[in-house]
This record gives sequence, C-alpha cells and structure tokens, in this order.
Amino acid sequence: MSTDYKFEGWVGLDANAAKGNMVWQSYEPKAFQETDIDIEITHSGICGSDIHTLSSGWGPTNYPCVVGHEIVGKAVRVGKDVKNGVKVGDRVGVGAQSGACLKGDCPSCASGSENYCMVQPTHTYNSKWPTGEKAYGGYAKYWRGDNNFVFAIPDAVPSAEAAPMLCGGVTLYSPLKQNGCGPGKRVGIVGIGGLGHFGLLWAKALGADKVVAISRTNAKREDALKLGADDFIATAEEGYEQKYANSLDLIVSTVSGPGLPLMSYLGLLDIGGQFIQVGAPEDPIPQFMAFALIMKKVKIGGSLIGSPAEIREMLQLAADKNIHPWINERPMEKANEAIVDFEKGVPRYRFVLKN
Amino acid sequence: MSTDYKFEGWVGLDANAAKGNMVWQSYEPKAFQETDIDIEITHSGICGSDIHTLSSGWGPTNYPCVVGHEIVGKAVRVGKDVKNGVKVGDRVGVGAQSGACLKGDCPSCASGSENYCMVQPTHTYNSKWPTGEKAYGGYAKYWRGDNNFVFAIPDAVPSAEAAPMLCGGVTLYSPLKQNGCGPGKRVGIVGIGGLGHFGLLWAKALGADKVVAISRTNAKREDALKLGADDFIATAEEGYEQKYANSLDLIVSTVSGPGLPLMSYLGLLDIGGQFIQVGAPEDPIPQFMAFALIMKKVKIGGSLIGSPAEIREMLQLAADKNIHPWINERPMEKANEAIVDFEKGVPRYRFVLKN
Repeated sequence: MSTDYKFEGWVGLDANAAKGNMVWQSYEPKAFQETDIDIEITHSGICGSDIHTLSSGWGPTNYPCVVGHEIVGKAVRVGKDVKNGVKVGDRVGVGAQSGACLKGDCPSCASGSENYCMVQPTHTYNSKWPTGEKAYGGYAKYWRGDNNFVFAIPDAVPSAEAAPMLCGGVTLYSPLKQNGCGPGKRVGIVGIGGLGHFGLLWAKALGADKVVAISRTNAKREDALKLGADDFIATAEEGYEQKYANSLDLIVSTVSGPGLPLMSYLGLLDIGGQFIQVGAPEDPIPQFMAFALIMKKVKIGGSLIGSPAEIREMLQLAADKNIHPWINERPMEKANEAIVDFEKGVPRYRFVLKN
Repeated sequence: MSTDYKFEGWVGLDANAAKGNMVWQSYEPKAFQETDIDIEITHSGICGSDIHTLSSGWGPTNYPCVVGHEIVGKAVRVGKDVKNGVKVGDRVGVGAQSGACLKGDCPSCASGSENYCMVQPTHTYNSKWPTGEKAYGGYAKYWRGDNNFVFAIPDAVPSAEAAPMLCGGVTLYSPLKQNGCGPGKRVGIVGIGGLGHFGLLWAKALGADKVVAISRTNAKREDALKLGADDFIATAEEGYEQKYANSLDLIVSTVSGPGLPLMSYLGLLDIGGQFIQVGAPEDPIPQFMAFALIMKKVKIGGSLIGSPAEIREMLQLAADKNIHPWINERPMEKANEAIVDFEKGVPRYRFVLKN
C-alpha cells in the first residue's frame, strides 16, 4: 500500500507558539509499521494540555511539536498485523495516549490501567514511540500510530462530538466510574468548562442521584442545569459551606490554583466521601489539616485520562444515552486564533478544529 | 441494686495536669440508667489523646477531666435494659467512643460507621452524655456508661493486652481492613510506636503479602521485624525513595508534623495506592503537587478509631491468631509518672495502667 498523502499540520517551533504562532508545515511521521493505522483527520479537539505543551509550561517541550490529542477521522491505511478490527474507511479516534508497554510485567497494563503504564507510555504528542521516533498530534491532516489506542467511533456519536471525549471526556468518565458514581451517589463537579461540563453529562448518564455543579460565580448556572445538574453552588456566595455541608459522596475537581478552597470542598463531603483532582494543575495543593480527612474518613485523590476499556465504555454510553457535549467548531486553518480564544475562556465548552 | 463503690480517679484540673500533675480525687459520674453498665477498672491504656486533652492541646478542655479511653475491667452493675449480653462479672472493655445517636437518620450510624456519628457522639472523656452529664475516662477505679460501646473481651485475650486495642489497636485495624489489607497487598506502616506496632501486628494477621515498617532511623528495626514486619525502611538513610519506589499498595501513617515527607511517601505507592493518616496530628499536611496524585491515581485519606463491629472483629482476630501487643504495665498509682515517661517516648510500645 502506498502513501499518497503528506503529513502536514500546525507546528510549534518554540514557546511562542502558544500565543497563536504555530506554523503550518510538513513533518516526518514515524515509519509505518504493520501494527500502525493512518488516520485522515476530520476533527481535533483543543485541550488545555495543548497550550501547556506549546508554551513549555510543564517543562521544556521537544520542539518542533504538533499538539492535539482529541483526534477523529477516517482510517486510510491499516497495517496487516492490526488485530483490533479497524478497516480502511472506518471512523476512528485517538486520545491523549497512543502507546503503552501492554506487557504483563507492568502492573498497570496487566490490570487494565494502561493509562498509568510506567514502563513505556507513548503520549500522542511531545513524546516518543518505542522506536525513538517522535509522536505528532492532531492539529494536522493525518495521524499515524499504533493500533492499540485507536478506537472505533460508534455510529450514533458524531465525529465532532467524539473528538473531545477522547481526552476531556474520559478524564471525567474514569474517576466518576472508578469512584462509584451511579445510583445512590451524590456527585459534585468543580469547574464548568471543557472538562467539567463532561462531568455533569457523565454523572447524570451514570445515574447519580444528584449532580451538583460547583463554580465560582453564577455565570454558568443556566448552562449547568441544561447540562443535567440538579443543583448549582456558587462558591463566591457566602453560606454555601453550611448549606451544603456533608451533602456529597464524590467531588471531581477540574480546577486548581493557589486559592483552591480545599478545606471548604472537603466540608461538602459526607462520611467516606472522596475528592478527586483531574486536569493538570501547575500549582500545588495547599496545606490542610489532617483532621479534615480523619474526622470523616474522606480521601483526596487524582486521576489521569482513562484506559482503553474506559474509552470504549464511554463512547458506548454516549451512544446509548444520547449524550451530546457542547462544542464549538473552528476551521483547522484558524487553529492559531482558536488557541488564543481558548486561553481567554471563550469555548462553550470545547473547541473542535475541523479539516 | 445499690452502688457500694466510689468513683475516684486521676483528675486533671488544668493544663498543668499533662506534666504529671493529675490529682487523685473523687468525682460524680453520670446518673445510672438502666441501659448503663458499671465497670470496675482493672486496666487502662495510655493514649496520646490523653495528653493532648490534659494539656488542652486540641482546644480548651472542660476541666476537671479524667482521661483514659482504653479501659478493661469487670462489669459490676448491669442495667436491666442492657441487651448486649453483658452480665455482672463479665470481663469487658470500652474504647475512645462511648455513645452515638445510633439512629437511622444519621448516615454514619445507619451504615455501621458509628465512629463517625455526626449527630450525637459521646467520647469517653472531655465529652458529654446526651443528658448533658460529663463523661469520665479510665484513669480511675470505676467507669459508668451506656452499654452500646461496652465490649466483651474474648477469653484468649488478656486484659492488659485488650486495653490498648480498644483505641490504639482499632485505630490501625479499621483503616487496614477498610482499605483492603490482606492477601495480595503490600502494606507500609509509618511510625513504630503505640499505634504503629499494632499496624504491623494486624497487617500480618490480616494476611498482607508484605508488611514494611517505615521509621526515621534504624533504632526500631529489630523490634519491627519481631513484630512481623518483612522489611524495614529508615527514611533518614539516602536512597530509600528509589529502592522502594512504587512498592506498596497501602500506607497507614501514625505520625505527622511539618516535616512529613509526604511526596516521598506517595512515591512509595504503586498505581492506585492509598496513604491513610491516623492518629491526631496538630500540624497541617504540607502542600504538595497534585501531579503526585494524578500520575498514579493515588489517594490520601484519614481514619478515626473504628466502629463497634470492627472492635469486635479485631478482638476476635487477636484471639484467633494469638496476637500479642507489646505493652508495659505501670501501677495506676504511678499514672503521673507514666504520662511523663509516655511523652518521653519510653513505652515499648504501649503503657497500661493497672489497678
């Protein structure tokens, strides 16, 4: 099979790229292996990690880089050793992770937690394949990579909506699922944005008794209720700590910062409740009194994207329950403008670049 | 039934009491109700909480107070409405909690987590009964209180050993049990003292694959191995973070302080591991990076004593598995000397006052 297409996309050449200065140019993808799939990209979501990486905010980025890890498109080349059922022409997607050791000697991979692979994880961009070749992301025309993290998109889920599920969506789905979100549970989602709005959608779809949106102001109250929240807490308003004390079993927080009112959030948890931090804060969790954990046996935890099995489950849940994230499409040509607007908080609630 | 005995004990009159200045005198117990049991105290363990309370270290104590909440003795009066099977002459014990609402409308009590009762918990000292009468502890000749938190001591467990189990013991038993300590799990215990030494005993008795004692220096290495530890980490020695990285599923920490090397401890946890703080630190948990939680989905939690069901389970486990805590008996008359020695770290590993 020949490759009569060219790999080109929005390339970040230095930290300045994060300010809307990516450059459209071609790049050399990994050499095609028979376990690889090439995707002709139709949609690519914009995730906060893209900006952190473009700007070297999490440490020095290995430029040149092509970001984007919420990728959906059409399989245009499928290696003969691909065993996951994907055929040329299928609608498929890739999330933030493109590879893992997948061996029995890595406890994460052995237990179906490939997203925590400690031996040989490959991230979709600013990372390397086991061969040492660079991995490039989705602000581009084509994507090439191993089939193990390429997912079939259910017919009922439109491509533009599937794209942001592959990172933003599963980042909320995984901690909700793993920490018992479902009937009998009262769940709070802190931060109503690209990540948080998925939290409201999934918590409701998973059957939680009560879903509460937690935001600083009331600006997104109406949106949150439309997204499925049963109640809304504006933490800028006085008295919420008392009114909602001990009222939640699980809080998933998508925001952070030096001013994170952690003690107040822990106060909202009932006995045995859990506070799970997702997303990727650059700031530390502020110090807090151990009594806050001890007196109610509450826990503080974290969660990183989701496993392949969870991604498949989530896509199926979206199909079965008719879940629709709120997205704004932007043309791929205007990716620079889109990342600038993203940083301004414009999306309601996720930008998706469209080729 | 008449009461031909007098309630007298070591009374703390002010914060100075913590320095070995408790005064032996009589006091007025609660009025006897038909749901109450009087215990002639034979043994009373010394717990860190006793000192914190005597010194008003956790906030102002309601003096006069009689501390001690690891109480074992003989039931000498049993109200006619007592339904828990205790009869006059039985060997029984009381821990840190003496009462709870025990009603269905308190989610803690309804779910068998009476130790987290939020509606009407009665602590064994520096607390009040629902009647408003003061609760007095075990550095005394007699104890009087509600039967719901009075436990039969199995024949196989000596009184002097049962006493410290009732607070110190269950404070470790509960988080181990609730967080999956057992076959297949690798468990670390931070701090080898009154609490921590129970951690080693229970973790081993519960069948953990590997039990690791974690202490600052090697001073208690031999003791820890005798207590059942399979390995010992001295955190003052360089290189332990690398050597033991990702090697534990559960850590129960009995120590704290501004210098708590939390990030290092989290580094010892494997994917999905948990760090549970028990005991009662006066210092906050230091700030730490959320990445430490996110990259391995680890959790930080707390735990407070244990439920009545857990206390019964633990006592039975001690009987069945022939578990013997390491205790040093001290005469009740020398309680002042004992609390001074306790603060110096003399016990190996728990002081028990004997009448």
